[in-house]
Amino acid sequence: MVKRNPHFAKLQSGYLFPEINKRKQAYLKMHPEAKILNLGIGDTTLPLDPHIAQRLQKHSFEMSTIEGYLGYGPEQGQSELRQKIASVLYSGRVHSEEVFVSDGAKCDIGRLQLLFGPDATMAVQDPAYPVYVDTSIMVGQPEIMYMPCNPENNFFPDLEQIKRTDLIYFCSPNNPTGAISTHEQLEKLIAFAKKNRSILIFDSAYSAYISDPSLPKSIYEIPGAREVAIEVGSFSKMAGFTGLRLGWVVIPEELRFEDQTSVRKDWERIHTTFFNGASCIVQKAGLAVLENEGLQFIQRMIESYMSNAEYLAENLRQLGITTYGGDNAPYIWVYFGKSSSWELFDTLLTKAQIIATPGIGFGSEGEGFLRFSAFAQRSHIEEAVQRLKELPLEVATA
Amino acid sequence: MVKRNPHFAKLQSGYLFPEINKRKQAYLKMHPEAKILNLGIGDTTLPLDPHIAQRLQKHSFEMSTIEGYLGYGPEQGQSELRQKIASVLYSGRVHSEEVFVSDGAKCDIGRLQLLFGPDATMAVQDPAYPVYVDTSIMVGQPEIMYMPCNPENNFFPDLEQIKRTDLIYFCSPNNPTGAISTHEQLEKLIAFAKKNRSILIFDSAYSAYISDPSLPKSIYEIPGAREVAIEVGSFSKMAGFTGLRLGWVVIPEELRFEDQTSVRKDWERIHTTFFNGASCIVQKAGLAVLENEGLQFIQRMIESYMSNAEYLAENLRQLGITTYGGDNAPYIWVYFGKSSSWELFDTLLTKAQIIATPGIGFGSEGEGFLRFSAFAQRSHIEEAVQRLKELPLEVATA
Repeated sequence: MVKRNPHFAKLQSGYLFPEINKRKQAYLKMHPEAKILNLGIGDTTLPLDPHIAQRLQKHSFEMSTIEGYLGYGPEQGQSELRQKIASVLYSGRVHSEEVFVSDGAKCDIGRLQLLFGPDATMAVQDPAYPVYVDTSIMVGQPEIMYMPCNPENNFFPDLEQIKRTDLIYFCSPNNPTGAISTHEQLEKLIAFAKKNRSILIFDSAYSAYISDPSLPKSIYEIPGAREVAIEVGSFSKMAGFTGLRLGWVVIPEELRFEDQTSVRKDWERIHTTFFNGASCIVQKAGLAVLENEGLQFIQRMIESYMSNAEYLAENLRQLGITTYGGDNAPYIWVYFGKSSSWELFDTLLTKAQIIATPGIGFGSEGEGFLRFSAFAQRSHIEEAVQRLKELPLEVATA
Repeated sequence: MVKRNPHFAKLQSGYLFPEINKRKQAYLKMHPEAKILNLGIGDTTLPLDPHIAQRLQKHSFEMSTIEGYLGYGPEQGQSELRQKIASVLYSGRVHSEEVFVSDGAKCDIGRLQLLFGPDATMAVQDPAYPVYVDTSIMVGQPEIMYMPCNPENNFFPDLEQIKRTDLIYFCSPNNPTGAISTHEQLEKLIAFAKKNRSILIFDSAYSAYISDPSLPKSIYEIPGAREVAIEVGSFSKMAGFTGLRLGWVVIPEELRFEDQTSVRKDWERIHTTFFNGASCIVQKAGLAVLENEGLQFIQRMIESYMSNAEYLAENLRQLGITTYGGDNAPYIWVYFGKSSSWELFDTLLTKAQIIATPGIGFGSEGEGFLRFSAFAQRSHIEEAVQRLKELPLEVATA
């Protein structure tokens, strides 16, 4: 008989979001009248701008005409979109042939694991987006080095404690902690990767949320990054495309394997063999995002989400609760001090019918934290703050 | 430094379609005025029906409204679409929870290789869609068993000559040969898989092109298939969705690994970790395809493509050229008798400015063949027939 892929047994059985949903459903079964406020949600909720939706409509219509019908496009993405990403989002720091358009960052992370294969070792921030670790285990990579990121080190790993790995996954602005790395920190990271001859995989999915002009939005703003870094980007949180599915990967021409072969060239092979292009009309909508009207819309959308973050963080702090992030990032990383993440989760669910994401679900350094999201509906955030204020302080701080 | 993934060096460097394009461009450089007729194309060319395009437009508009905005959906697909695929396309032979909606068959084939992992052995038809073999090599699978399919065996492998493998990839209607397997043949295939305790991966991407009611459109029409077979399906050729990207995989609940764990359950983990759902509006359009109006449209579209196939095959035969397929399948597999596929390709390109796909690009059994496609534009097919008629017979038959 066919043997089960041995790497799958190594996966933790409980997956974060299904477990949250299970506990929520169990509570609702006991309290069907409860109005649960979901402040954990990592999904966008604001509608698209008409400028972008009209572009989608236009090309949807044209799919029913002989002239406007689109079949297979280049797997690497429509050439106009690749150029626009390079010029608008990277100010020409990368070339359009280095930009590979995809159906989103999650899928690209999986394909990147395939690119480097089962023998590659990797380092990852702790806490981190679970997909880095899960995909690494599933392709059978032998070793994962965790880089603790916590309030003690200001959420930037102590690189002297980190042993060499082939790959370093790094996300800034960070999901889940909301931490943003400075120029100086990213220079250290590049130097560390260079010294170790590692490849840095920089996840910039939340870069549009950086408003402080002194903070880098792309790894390629750091000198030397082109020789060591891949960047993963996404329209999901930048433009509300979580449902539409659009992202990209940048692989600079300079990036080389030990045998001096081109990383970009092997990626092209992965991208064109394991993938068949993002949806043609969604790519057209991506182009609309990067035009002036679209850029103005995403600016307003981001300001709206960030005002949620500011309101929520400010009110949590007034309650005496310790918060991190929430400025230049859409997540607030909240420390309640005494209990485990799942105890805190259950307390908030049962005492205030509020859902936040347990930090432990992102790694052991997340224990004791909850992740609150700026993507939640404003009315839910306001009502949640009201409910928290009405709780006795010892409950609010668990 | 980071080592190159060792499996990548095993890939053949020349990829079929880039090589075709290279030769075409070289010819055009020498003969810029040439009007090249592409009869090799595997891409749809007929526009969508207004019924389907209007559904896309509707949901595109709704993405700009608070009520109609869609963020992340279930990675497995919108529940209504999963149900509709199960009921309309499988007449209830599979359950909606066994249907996993995706961005297309190519991506699913890659993810299936990940599911079974680097130790799985596989058998594949020769000739075959190159993605089965390329993805197998790239995930590092140790052994590929080729099953010759040629006029001598009526394009169905002699299973007594085939040694046991974990996986058997099988495509019917076949790309590139246009061969369709009968009930009896698929019964043999299921029995062979059962005897060997192999898993059959049945690619039904062209099943909508079967008009003969006595031929099976799905592997699940064969008794016992649920215990041994996975089916890969696609909206690409069925409904002209090559650019939009929509497909599905069926994994029956009965399917088990040697340790009795559920294949469907591990697939769910792959699907939700390496993938983030097909584009929400494209899924809505997929639903429109499976409604009465949509089904009528795809019937007309398929009849139109198949009348291309009939016209082309008939005219090739009148020229004394041997053809296979082209009924119940959109591909005609043409044997010219004397030359290699690439010699034939070059002859047609230089003598008649016609492009067809070299059979050798699909496997060694394809040597001497060219694949002609019913998806080409009718006017191109008619002009190509005219040009072939004007060639001296010894050139037409190379």
